[in-house]
Amino acid sequence: MIRLLVTGGTFDKEYDEIGGTLFFKDTHVAEMLRLGRSHAAVSIETVMLIDSLQMTDRDRQRVADRCLACPESRIVVTHGTDTMVETAAHLARHVPHKTVVLTGAMVPYAFGSSDGLFNLGSALSFVQVLPPGVYIAMNGRHFAWDKVRKNRTLGVFEPLPSRA
Amino acid sequence: MIRLLVTGGTFDKEYDEIGGTLFFKDTHVAEMLRLGRSHAAVSIETVMLIDSLQMTDRDRQRVADRCLACPESRIVVTHGTDTMVETAAHLARHVPHKTVVLTGAMVPYAFGSSDGLFNLGSALSFVQVLPPGVYIAMNGRHFAWDKVRKNRTLGVFEPLPSRA
Amino acid sequence: MIRLLVTGGTFDKEYDEIGGTLFFKDTHVAEMLRLGRSHAAVSIETVMLIDSLQMTDRDRQRVADRCLACPESRIVVTHGTDTMVETAAHLARHVPHKTVVLTGAMVPYAFGSSDGLFNLGSALSFVQVLPPGVYIAMNGRHFAWDKVRKNRTLGVFEPLPSRA
Amino acid sequence: MIRLLVTGGTFDKEYDEIGGTLFFKDTHVAEMLRLGRSHAAVSIETVMLIDSLQMTDRDRQRVADRCLACPESRIVVTHGTDTMVETAAHLARHVPHKTVVLTGAMVPYAFGSSDGLFNLGSALSFVQVLPPGVYIAMNGRHFAWDKVRKNRTLGVFEPLPSRA
Repeated sequence: MIRLLVTGGTFDKEYDEIGGTLFFKDTHVAEMLRLGRSHAAVSIETVMLIDSLQMTDRDRQRVADRCLACPESRIVVTHGTDTMVETAAHLARHVPHKTVVLTGAMVPYAFGSSDGLFNLGSALSFVQVLPPGVYIAMNGRHFAWDKVRKNRTLGVFEPLPSRA
Repeated sequence: MIRLLVTGGTFDKEYDEIGGTLFFKDTHVAEMLRLGRSHAAVSIETVMLIDSLQMTDRDRQRVADRCLACPESRIVVTHGTDTMVETAAHLARHVPHKTVVLTGAMVPYAFGSSDGLFNLGSALSFVQVLPPGVYIAMNGRHFAWDKVRKNRTLGVFEPLPSRA
Repeated sequence: MIRLLVTGGTFDKEYDEIGGTLFFKDTHVAEMLRLGRSHAAVSIETVMLIDSLQMTDRDRQRVADRCLACPESRIVVTHGTDTMVETAAHLARHVPHKTVVLTGAMVPYAFGSSDGLFNLGSALSFVQVLPPGVYIAMNGRHFAWDKVRKNRTLGVFEPLPSRA
Repeated sequence: MIRLLVTGGTFDKEYDEIGGTLFFKDTHVAEMLRLGRSHAAVSIETVMLIDSLQMTDRDRQRVADRCLACPESRIVVTHGTDTMVETAAHLARHVPHKTVVLTGAMVPYAFGSSDGLFNLGSALSFVQVLPPGVYIAMNGRHFAWDKVRKNRTLGVFEPLPSRA
């Protein structure tokens, strides 16, 4: 069994046609799993629906608490990309003995050209086979939590440059 | 590096608006990797573009030959679902020491509601972490080649019932 | 008020993911009007759901009967493109004093790249302003029923060549 | 021949995946006409690409000038919905003897669930058959420029209440 914790992020943003802005209404994760005709045993839980730039350490601890409390030892967390690395580091400190994979999207799923479905299929697969630890799975690759950064100019997750 | 061998299947079918039938023109795999903003190191090779019901043992051997000849030891094969299990068995007999993951789609990628992008993200992830062997990755799950069958009534890959 | 009579055609075809074939389940017209956020006063009636190559004169008469019986004097008929011209001729003989616009699609609406929504918006607009008569509205143009033919090679409706 | 003047608006907004905001890059109108397999004789001209809340009277005059200067007497103007009525009034004062139809979208075309294709098909059809004058065509209906308002709460164009 896999637990899927929803926190929001670009993944779940929608277009408000009255105001012309982006907002959160509901998570699209269940719909995405239906589209993917997923037969993986997944239990979805919405922890929060926020932009990751707004995420506080208190929010991060709420995610960690849910990781600790749930019976599953394999957990996918959907998350905004801007602070995904920070949350991964927080979870690495507080959630031992479980395989946790964070994923997200560069474009909202509700828009036509999203990478969300690809990333969700990827994260759900990595989480089934990786050993305990905290990982980020984005755009076909996976990284250990302390070996990755977001390149904000390119909008891409990349390996940390190794130190001399 | 991952080698991605294209053989066709529902994945790559298109609608012919003159004749009103389904046909193959080109593979959509490169476009799907772009949509997924994939940064995995993937080298795409189209071996054939056929319906898997038309696949002969000679065709299967061509796929096996490409698996053996390519320098990569991690290989994804896109394939029609109807005879995916047969091809997996053929590859298991002829391709030792490599990790080969077959995947496909229940609905053509070119149609709106395809599971293809989800499955491609999944197969590309499983192939990076599974030990050598031949697997089928469909709809969020993976199976060893000799532990799976396609349930044609439901259109779902499922574990083989264990024998007494 | 506009009456919208559904007869099927490519417009409403879907992909059967078990059998890998195209079939009819329900009309998509109501969903298309929702997507177009249509505020036109439209009353939808499904007369039949068939491929227009299967349409008989008896079927054509059923459509004509519905045109005559309905209280609206402005009618859109969704129809397969292969025999749209024949049905238009039939309606021209049997339905006087009403504005009837036939439309359809080259690609099923359920597939991503359909012209259906464009054609439906077009037909609904032409029907509101054209004088009584029977017309075909396809791909941004409209034709009187006796001034048009389908070019089957190009998949395009075009004006009949004028006679010397 | 129809002239299609592009001014921007929601129609043409895109999602910037680096910044997470909405912006203009290019117009999608040519791509939309391709998707609609339009065979109407349309000549596309991009006058500007702006949010209609930013449109000044000087901008409106540029649109009027293009309406006057172009050889076509049937003109579609794509426009943001927020000030579409103001621009229609401006064009009514400055562009006599031509049929001008303004249209737009509530959701960007580049997002999956846009009404744009429906509205474009509708505007292109109305412009072919309406007598000279300035009109707004949105969501299956058309209005003379001085008989319509945008209901900002509902996000809908509606007839002006008639005065006693």
